[in-house]
Amino acid sequence: MKPFPRAEISRKALKHNLARLHELAPSSKVMAVVKANGYGHGLLNVAQCLDNADGFGLARLEEALALRTGGVTAKLLLLEGFFRIGDLTTLVEHDIETVVHHESQLEMLESINLTKPVTVWLKVDSGMHRLGFSPAQFDATYQRLMANDNVAKPIHLMTHFACADEPSNPSTAEQQRVFDTLIKGLPGDRTLANSAGALFWQQSQADWIRPGIALYGVSPVFGDLGAKHGLMPAMDLVSQLIAIREHKAGESAGYGSYWTAEKDTNLGVVAIGYGDGYPRNAPLGTPVLVNGRIVPIVGRVSMDMLTVDLGIDANDKVGDLAVLWGKELPVEEVAEHIGTIAYELVTKLTPRVAVCLD
Amino acid sequence: MKPFPRAEISRKALKHNLARLHELAPSSKVMAVVKANGYGHGLLNVAQCLDNADGFGLARLEEALALRTGGVTAKLLLLEGFFRIGDLTTLVEHDIETVVHHESQLEMLESINLTKPVTVWLKVDSGMHRLGFSPAQFDATYQRLMANDNVAKPIHLMTHFACADEPSNPSTAEQQRVFDTLIKGLPGDRTLANSAGALFWQQSQADWIRPGIALYGVSPVFGDLGAKHGLMPAMDLVSQLIAIREHKAGESAGYGSYWTAEKDTNLGVVAIGYGDGYPRNAPLGTPVLVNGRIVPIVGRVSMDMLTVDLGIDANDKVGDLAVLWGKELPVEEVAEHIGTIAYELVTKLTPRVAVCLD
Ligand SMILES: Cc1ncc(COP(=O)(O)O)c(CN[C@H](C)C(=O)O)c1O
Ligand SMILES: Cc1ncc(COP(=O)(O)O)c(CN[C@H](C)C(=O)O)c1O
Repeated sequence: MKPFPRAEISRKALKHNLARLHELAPSSKVMAVVKANGYGHGLLNVAQCLDNADGFGLARLEEALALRTGGVTAKLLLLEGFFRIGDLTTLVEHDIETVVHHESQLEMLESINLTKPVTVWLKVDSGMHRLGFSPAQFDATYQRLMANDNVAKPIHLMTHFACADEPSNPSTAEQQRVFDTLIKGLPGDRTLANSAGALFWQQSQADWIRPGIALYGVSPVFGDLGAKHGLMPAMDLVSQLIAIREHKAGESAGYGSYWTAEKDTNLGVVAIGYGDGYPRNAPLGTPVLVNGRIVPIVGRVSMDMLTVDLGIDANDKVGDLAVLWGKELPVEEVAEHIGTIAYELVTKLTPRVAVCLD
Repeated sequence: MKPFPRAEISRKALKHNLARLHELAPSSKVMAVVKANGYGHGLLNVAQCLDNADGFGLARLEEALALRTGGVTAKLLLLEGFFRIGDLTTLVEHDIETVVHHESQLEMLESINLTKPVTVWLKVDSGMHRLGFSPAQFDATYQRLMANDNVAKPIHLMTHFACADEPSNPSTAEQQRVFDTLIKGLPGDRTLANSAGALFWQQSQADWIRPGIALYGVSPVFGDLGAKHGLMPAMDLVSQLIAIREHKAGESAGYGSYWTAEKDTNLGVVAIGYGDGYPRNAPLGTPVLVNGRIVPIVGRVSMDMLTVDLGIDANDKVGDLAVLWGKELPVEEVAEHIGTIAYELVTKLTPRVAVCLD
């Protein structure tokens, strides 16, 4: 018996999306971004499935160690970098590369003697203003890293876009200009592009692209669909109907009596809620797929359940599947209803959802 | 070295809150609701810590089995009931009790021969309209269960409130009246009250109260504080500053350049984001506690990080702690800023957050 709720992950879709990205960026290597539990798709599963990727991008050291423990020998890069001096020894021991984005990391690198140099990617803040050295700090930082025996040479170079998901926003070209100017003539690999960069800014593809969301078949652009770019959705989030009730006009349902039926209908209770990661703020009308048709959420999403209006003529049964998003109900569409990005929906599943690779 | 982000769970607070509920409902037993990973506090940890509870309420069979596997021998009740005929054998084998709320469950109970009868709690839909038999269905259902040898006698009786978190809403009294009328004179234990019922509707306490959120020190009422009811917050959600940057007036920060500084300041980057379960829709100004003072979130919460305005005079350092909520920053207050209930915040942490019992 299959567990539920479950996230059914398609190996075929993951492999297809990686191949599609290689096709879209034929001169670039692919650093597959699998942080945050593979955007909810299962960290180790995804990395093992994407054995064609040239490397993997993680946020935290624990994630990289989980891949090494799971037997992944590929290149691993910590996109958030290291934060504690003790982490450096771990990086060397497990052959993990790191972004360097802050003065405090330079100080740590200068106050230790590593048995082997660590491979670093120097992050330039070209306009995102989250992590990275400013253009004014760049030269001095580069020199300090060059002078440091704990740092492998050449130093690799990276930046990250703030608005690449808005293809008409001029800031992406400006970020690229700032980055290109600074790093001109330096050795080392270059990487700029997230999924949106890889899809919409061919000139940003450089030595490595760093796609995350596109690998999972999802468009980085709000209101857009991955399918339009030849991507295949990799996750079906599936649960079951656990109760059906005849619901009379005028009756409300759920916490706060948030919704009242206008006419007689059948109410279906689906075993998924915010305790599984489904958003509590999903409004009335958010689509759910039951037996091949879209039915609207009614009432408030509760911790373990949500309710859908199955209609007066429903002949659904307890035990029938309910798909929250997937191949036949794009997660981008659900995200639009809820007013968030698909990234948040897939990534935020809690440990109660079983992640199953087909 | 402590992992981060981490949810630090206070054993003392959990035990205190259970004692406080026993004090508030001195004639009732306590069914501690630990579903959804103990509302994010760690299922097994919480159950082991609350060894004074008279039983535990779970949503799904997998949760109950995890407690049995972990050595918990107390009474366990599936609040959502069972959904598959095979589940019944498992219930008997592991001595797990179940709610019966739907016709389909009666049919399953009537089409199997169990080696031992299963203890059931018949759920009445007294007005919540999510799970349960309507008052009109009650008598026939009760008779079917009485006639069924797979069902242990006496049958226990329950209902659930829709609006008990609104102490002035008359529907709670009406739900209680409907329930009391139906079950009058029947044997078996009765339970009606969730946390709000236990706190605000003494007459609903009955044989068992079923508190969830109050055990974790949190008020069930939006805009209220658990502390007002003598409860102690059990979770501190903690991360670290991983970067600090001098940020000039007029510079924006983060995805979508969502926020622009009005004056020069220092921006702190905290290693927590929606990939950890922190809500992406936390607005500008949502409070975070850094070195004893409240600082506002600025910019958009991203997958692994969020940014706070540390102020022009900040002398915080990379590695300093950032508390997202806890003893000194009530989760109820954070939830109010974000426009959700504290239940969702604590429950929705992803597997990337380490849950650590003190
Ligand atoms: C440094 C870096 N590179 C590459 C990616 C991949 O982005 P995308 O999924 O859009 O292809 C991310 C993801 N960022 C997430 C989304 C964030 O920080 O919120 C990133 O932080
Ligand atoms: C049947 C039942 N009993 C008792 C509780 C405990 O509620 P509280 O945490 O308010 O004390 C719940 C939780 N419900 C959650 C919150 C839900 O279904 O959304 C429940 O579903």
